[in-house]
Amino acid sequence: MRYRHPDRDQIRVDGVLSALGHPVRLAAVRVLDGGGEHNCGSVLAELGITAKSTMTHHWRVLRDSGVIIQEPSGRENLLTLRRADLDARYPGLLDAVLAGARTDEDGDRSPGASPS
Amino acid sequence: MRYRHPDRDQIRVDGVLSALGHPVRLAAVRVLDGGGEHNCGSVLAELGITAKSTMTHHWRVLRDSGVIIQEPSGRENLLTLRRADLDARYPGLLDAVLAGARTDEDGDRSPGASPS
Repeated sequence: MRYRHPDRDQIRVDGVLSALGHPVRLAAVRVLDGGGEHNCGSVLAELGITAKSTMTHHWRVLRDSGVIIQEPSGRENLLTLRRADLDARYPGLLDAVLAGARTDEDGDRSPGASPS
Repeated sequence: MRYRHPDRDQIRVDGVLSALGHPVRLAAVRVLDGGGEHNCGSVLAELGITAKSTMTHHWRVLRDSGVIIQEPSGRENLLTLRRADLDARYPGLLDAVLAGARTDEDGDRSPGASPS
């Protein structure tokens, strides 16, 4: 099954923000940004998520908003972050978001942070 | 009535992205970023929105995520974009988002754009 993806100039910033504005989707994007070849299973494994069905919705949101490419490859779905498209259309946005996720994470880990 | 607002170090990037990832809230933030003193009524007027009740929800989302300060001032609620807090915690994020909104808008207005 082939999925539909928006062209670069069809991407909308509110859609991208909404897609990235969910902790699980943001975590998945961070995995994809970390490099290496990924499919749905490998991202789930890295996130420690076992509920594959929930992720089906998240992949769709990320795909429809233009954040990732999801394409069949053998019996799996290859996932790719659309960094070049996002960087071209919204310079600095993805980097600021990923840096922000690290800021939050570092705050959670600092000695003064309250347990989550 | 006084509203609760998160401290700067309680702000989370996924909450900010989710708050900004809605066309009406993003438009409201652009109005606030444009400068001048604003209350709920003046933003609604600028956006051409008459459904005040819907905006009550949107103001809460923007407030709870740390994007705006909403405080009583006489019989009105004064609204302020928390630019200093957002810029300090997530450098470049708000500027990239606002630039992205302009990119989308310019694309909608270009001769080759399909009518929305």
